Amino acid sequence: MNASDSESTRIGPWTWQNSRDIYQNPWIHVREDKVIRPDGEEGIYGVVEFANWAIGVVALDASGRIVLVGQHRYPLNYYSWEIPEGGCLKGSDTLEAAAARELREETGVEAKRWDYLGCFTLSNAVSDEVAHLFLARDLTQGEPSPDPTEVLQVKWEMLEEACRQVLEGEITESISIAGLLRAKHFLENEKAGVKKEYKRGP
Amino acid sequence: MNASDSESTRIGPWTWQNSRDIYQNPWIHVREDKVIRPDGEEGIYGVVEFANWAIGVVALDASGRIVLVGQHRYPLNYYSWEIPEGGCLKGSDTLEAAAARELREETGVEAKRWDYLGCFTLSNAVSDEVAHLFLARDLTQGEPSPDPTEVLQVKWEMLEEACRQVLEGEITESISIAGLLRAKHFLENEKAGVKKEYKRGP
Repeated sequence: MNASDSESTRIGPWTWQNSRDIYQNPWIHVREDKVIRPDGEEGIYGVVEFANWAIGVVALDASGRIVLVGQHRYPLNYYSWEIPEGGCLKGSDTLEAAAARELREETGVEAKRWDYLGCFTLSNAVSDEVAHLFLARDLTQGEPSPDPTEVLQVKWEMLEEACRQVLEGEITESISIAGLLRAKHFLENEKAGVKKEYKRGP
Repeated sequence: MNASDSESTRIGPWTWQNSRDIYQNPWIHVREDKVIRPDGEEGIYGVVEFANWAIGVVALDASGRIVLVGQHRYPLNYYSWEIPEGGCLKGSDTLEAAAARELREETGVEAKRWDYLGCFTLSNAVSDEVAHLFLARDLTQGEPSPDPTEVLQVKWEMLEEACRQVLEGEITESISIAGLLRAKHFLENEKAGVKKEYKRGP
């Protein structure tokens, strides 16, 4: 869509009129749309578009432990423990290939068995970011090869304990929250012989 | 912090050098920082700052149902069912006052009993957005008064059923995922006589 389109476009109760590029770096693109709001008035809508799908991996070993990665998060200036995460450039890799790569780079772990745990939206009033979640099993430990811009620590916790930390506000990052709790539910369903397919979009 | 500061500032393994304002609207401020990356190279970091704390409310009635709000989300152009959500302008209202206001405006519901369910970060590699979660009980139903820019539907679901939808990827919005699952855990703890305090920051 660009400003020269003569037809306006409906987006739910909004009418899109035109878009203005504001900013782009390798990770995000910011645009401001001129819109007709649901109440009929003229307005603007600023949207942060993401170049990547976000990816989160719950990697579970044979003794019921999952791997967590610790790192300093720049925008909020705090230290955060999270499941292995990364990005999948839209239209390049498959989600599964990106998940395997991020897990291997951040922790050195490789997995033979992968299950998809669905996706979710991170900040859907402002951005188009979507995270896709995976459960990885049948693990082997190799050497990590983190991105030179990352300084990471790695630790293993029992899945049950990590879920308690999510539910009591000690793990506070959205992809870890959704990934760990969906993994626990998926494993309970699996044990009960129940198999649900997760949809690939929000 | 501005470009005339002579001292550079450490942010974890990064060194902040200066910030450039890119864009501002009533909801977000985008800036680009010049940084020294963890590997010692010069780089940039684009940060999306949020004017508001995000707020999410799980409102539970006496028969175990919670209220969900349906609305079209512009950035991803899809329809989403979510717990009542809104913003609390940083430094103005208390989180509790904002939570009560958003619940009342979107659903008409007022609550006499409030519990804090902690907070979480939504997209912590790119933005400073933090959501704060509440459980609201002892409800009375009044008239909603939605923002004129919102077109909302309201429905009630059993909390257990909403949590199933979260865990099986039918509810796909981050604040609803964290809020509903923490609410269920909080209520289980309460029934067992366990009281945990949630911390107010990530």
